[in-house]
Amino acid sequence: MHQVENLMESQAEGHHADLQAALRHIITSGGKRIRPTVTLLVGRMLGAAQDKLITLAAAIELLHTATLVHDDLIDGALLRRGIPTLNSQWSPGATVLTGDFLFARAAKLAADTESIPVMSLFSSTLSVIVNGEISQLFSSRCQADRQGYYQRIYAKTASLFETSATCAALISPVTEETIQTIRTYGFNIGMAFQIMDDVLDFISDPSKLGKPVGSDLKQGLITLPTIYYIENHPEDEMVQQILDGHCPHYEEEIQSLVERIRNSPSIDQSIAEAERYVNEAFLCLQKLPPCPERTHLEELTLYITRREL
Amino acid sequence: MHQVENLMESQAEGHHADLQAALRHIITSGGKRIRPTVTLLVGRMLGAAQDKLITLAAAIELLHTATLVHDDLIDGALLRRGIPTLNSQWSPGATVLTGDFLFARAAKLAADTESIPVMSLFSSTLSVIVNGEISQLFSSRCQADRQGYYQRIYAKTASLFETSATCAALISPVTEETIQTIRTYGFNIGMAFQIMDDVLDFISDPSKLGKPVGSDLKQGLITLPTIYYIENHPEDEMVQQILDGHCPHYEEEIQSLVERIRNSPSIDQSIAEAERYVNEAFLCLQKLPPCPERTHLEELTLYITRREL
Repeated sequence: MHQVENLMESQAEGHHADLQAALRHIITSGGKRIRPTVTLLVGRMLGAAQDKLITLAAAIELLHTATLVHDDLIDGALLRRGIPTLNSQWSPGATVLTGDFLFARAAKLAADTESIPVMSLFSSTLSVIVNGEISQLFSSRCQADRQGYYQRIYAKTASLFETSATCAALISPVTEETIQTIRTYGFNIGMAFQIMDDVLDFISDPSKLGKPVGSDLKQGLITLPTIYYIENHPEDEMVQQILDGHCPHYEEEIQSLVERIRNSPSIDQSIAEAERYVNEAFLCLQKLPPCPERTHLEELTLYITRREL
Repeated sequence: MHQVENLMESQAEGHHADLQAALRHIITSGGKRIRPTVTLLVGRMLGAAQDKLITLAAAIELLHTATLVHDDLIDGALLRRGIPTLNSQWSPGATVLTGDFLFARAAKLAADTESIPVMSLFSSTLSVIVNGEISQLFSSRCQADRQGYYQRIYAKTASLFETSATCAALISPVTEETIQTIRTYGFNIGMAFQIMDDVLDFISDPSKLGKPVGSDLKQGLITLPTIYYIENHPEDEMVQQILDGHCPHYEEEIQSLVERIRNSPSIDQSIAEAERYVNEAFLCLQKLPPCPERTHLEELTLYITRREL
């Protein structure tokens, strides 16, 4: 991972000094690096060449970073992981261009793997992510249907987890069947990861989360805990409002709904849903021969529903 | 070119309806399509497969379009070619994401050529373009050195012309020597093209240009005609100001400088400079066997310094 981070940071070398500073700032701002970790472990498990694997992992994390830079700009977010965002310090124009630069370097690193299927999946995934963001931007607030929710979290998160795992398999000497198993694995951990993110938005300590509790709902974004609450409480007045297409907009109204959801079984139901995805992912790993990397992936997989709880 | 445009427009199929509308708007807004024309002619001249060539041409033009979408947003431009820009009608967020979507689809099309060197050059070129824009954004206004000017127009324009031509050669059954000849050809027409754009900014009919005369200088951007004027008129008071690092900022001051440049030999000197690049490009073509496409490219090349004069 150290080599992956060095490779990421070296991408601005020879470019404008402010760009180098921005890249260093973004990369040292941390992040869990879970996507490149998946790439590295899957690739090592399946026998990918080390140098290509590091290149691929850096490409994946840079792509993720690029989308965050533009997301934070669009949302006007001032902090991410407690550290000032680029858009809080730079002009919108400089922030747009820095994101573009990261896209370009991510694409270059993906090309450096010299795998056409990797390039192709990589660029398709970017389309999926961006299309998801556009759909969210243009759709009305407080969309409460379950199907729409799964589509949203696939576009937002699971697609890149799927790609992080699948690309590693694509540069490994394995059968098409193994590639499909790994794809299913990546999809499932991605879905579980985002559901848990959505749960943590309700139950985490706000100081750890770096944002107020229930901030998704405050932004008109209905996630799985709210969907379960709606299904369980058709009699709740605010649930009826939401189902009638009226998004709550008074601070106290929303805060009291957040409290009701926090203290309802909807949280455990959501975690159980994430655990179903984790179990599916776990089953995928069982199809592969045991090895230290598989054990490591199993631990990472089980950790998804246990983090910060 | 009709097939290229269809392929471009089909990129939003299956995606969000507003994205489809945006793409249609952008593509029907026209543009000279000179970059994909270069790609198509070079590829046909060198024997590239027709389907890959069309895919490549669409990738090149979509990449160009994506950079324009973000540029117009950053510059706050309301019109391009007399047609309202996306950012004049959409929120900044939607505009950023539409640009990102176009980048993603351009990269996917580049991957569809199934050529690693194409992918690699394609993503490197995007880095060069974006790095150029970032440098411009962060550098002080009224940079008057000739070397810096050439670097700027390479990043802004010539790099993508070079890539438009080179990628077509890369998917053709030709020697490395021919690829290099084509690369030099693309570089030279790109440099000539941007110099002529900069000349036209001074001498065009504003109604045809869709912006006021001398708008570059008004934005603090010093292009070749001004550089020649500075070299020829060290006694001019405003030239001295610029050389001392003071960018003129009074409307009338700038307007009178624009008039002096318009009516000076600096314009013809700049055109002569563009013609030198055109001649270099022409010489590259002479190294290749004659064929209808070569003739067509020769005409296109000579036309660069003659358009709209």
